[in-house]
Amino acid sequence: MTFAATILTLYPEMFPGPLGVSLAGRALEQGKWSCEAVQLRDFATDKHRTVDDTPAGGGAGMVLKPDVLSRALDHAIGSRPDAPVLAMTPRGRPITQARIRQIASGGGVTILCGRFEGFDERIFEAYPQIEQVSLADIVLSGGEPAALAILDACIRLLPGVMGAPDSGAEESFEEGLLEYPHYTRPQEWEGRTIPEVLRSGDHAKIAAWRKQRSEDDTRLRRPDLWERHRDVRDQPASGARHEQKDQGT
Amino acid sequence: MTFAATILTLYPEMFPGPLGVSLAGRALEQGKWSCEAVQLRDFATDKHRTVDDTPAGGGAGMVLKPDVLSRALDHAIGSRPDAPVLAMTPRGRPITQARIRQIASGGGVTILCGRFEGFDERIFEAYPQIEQVSLADIVLSGGEPAALAILDACIRLLPGVMGAPDSGAEESFEEGLLEYPHYTRPQEWEGRTIPEVLRSGDHAKIAAWRKQRSEDDTRLRRPDLWERHRDVRDQPASGARHEQKDQGT
Repeated sequence: MTFAATILTLYPEMFPGPLGVSLAGRALEQGKWSCEAVQLRDFATDKHRTVDDTPAGGGAGMVLKPDVLSRALDHAIGSRPDAPVLAMTPRGRPITQARIRQIASGGGVTILCGRFEGFDERIFEAYPQIEQVSLADIVLSGGEPAALAILDACIRLLPGVMGAPDSGAEESFEEGLLEYPHYTRPQEWEGRTIPEVLRSGDHAKIAAWRKQRSEDDTRLRRPDLWERHRDVRDQPASGARHEQKDQGT
Repeated sequence: MTFAATILTLYPEMFPGPLGVSLAGRALEQGKWSCEAVQLRDFATDKHRTVDDTPAGGGAGMVLKPDVLSRALDHAIGSRPDAPVLAMTPRGRPITQARIRQIASGGGVTILCGRFEGFDERIFEAYPQIEQVSLADIVLSGGEPAALAILDACIRLLPGVMGAPDSGAEESFEEGLLEYPHYTRPQEWEGRTIPEVLRSGDHAKIAAWRKQRSEDDTRLRRPDLWERHRDVRDQPASGARHEQKDQGT
């Protein structure tokens, strides 16, 4: 099955961009995913192809018009009615690896990219199915770099894309923890050696060391993740650890 | 002054990529920033140009070799000794808008992008100046999409890049809050109207409404940001709100 990515954007030439090379690029050539970048401006109706207007109440920047957005969304939703629709906005909920896994297990995704000051808010009232998603607590010039990152995270999880099928299982965020640190040859490099336990050949000891480092580093570097991990661990098992994290209010 | 971006990567062809068009693309043409993507493989010393090896202790994937990384870093640090060095890794500290502002106010940045399972951890012991930075709590196929997002966030803040100089002042995260929602014409769209206050012409009332929405939306959508905002607000003024958030342990 081909994972169909549809991007609504003022800069379709940004896609597939970096996703046209390396892992994602090979997967694109192999038909494991497809990339349709749709020009928002094609849904304007005046001769200047206007997509934005000044903000109501004043202020800097321009706001994407609801009527144009609506026509673009109708087009995308009409073509792919089952695909989740994400709108990239710093006002959105932070994306999680759990949500990425859910999206990657489906048939595709539609991503609406804003520019300027953002979207007319009424679009989210009119299309309650739109997920407002934030990539990070930074402000981008538009949603496109965020969409590229989210697509990259999805594509690597598609069946047959990563070389080793277990590459995705033991990594950061999958258990609500950071991944343990890695080492490789040479055994000694500029006076620094690989931790002894990793050369022991004792798989149980290695696994225990990695788990400990994973927990220690999460506690030190990401107290926010550690809190959530502890909360979830201390609750009666529900089998819904990630969903819980992702769908909370 | 030109903001000099140096990216150490196995995929230099991904740069400037999406940053070659739109706002960032124009700024690149105008010499407001420069983009040097350095091939990590050029710092391998064997005839196969090997950059990675299997993880010590076993497991899936490959780890970037410390000797190769070290030579690449020495090259980049030698050319731009004053530029901060970021390594993109999900084990890093989440990037913040405050840190983006700091970076954008300097002369440039060097970004090390990993692929495969990541970096040999010893590189961070040998180069304590490296900031391990995470873009989001998702796993990418490599650091490149994250580097593109971080560069985009920096570039839009460079002098003369954004159209309106105050576009950057009132936006998400700048006060530790989400930005208020935006509206534009038409006044009535599919039965939905722009909030009355935004048409009042009363600037004080508009500002009060926006502040309230900003606070309400942050509390509802991002309780994590709201907690931090409240903590900072309730402390004696230190003039270091962002630094505090950013430099914490």
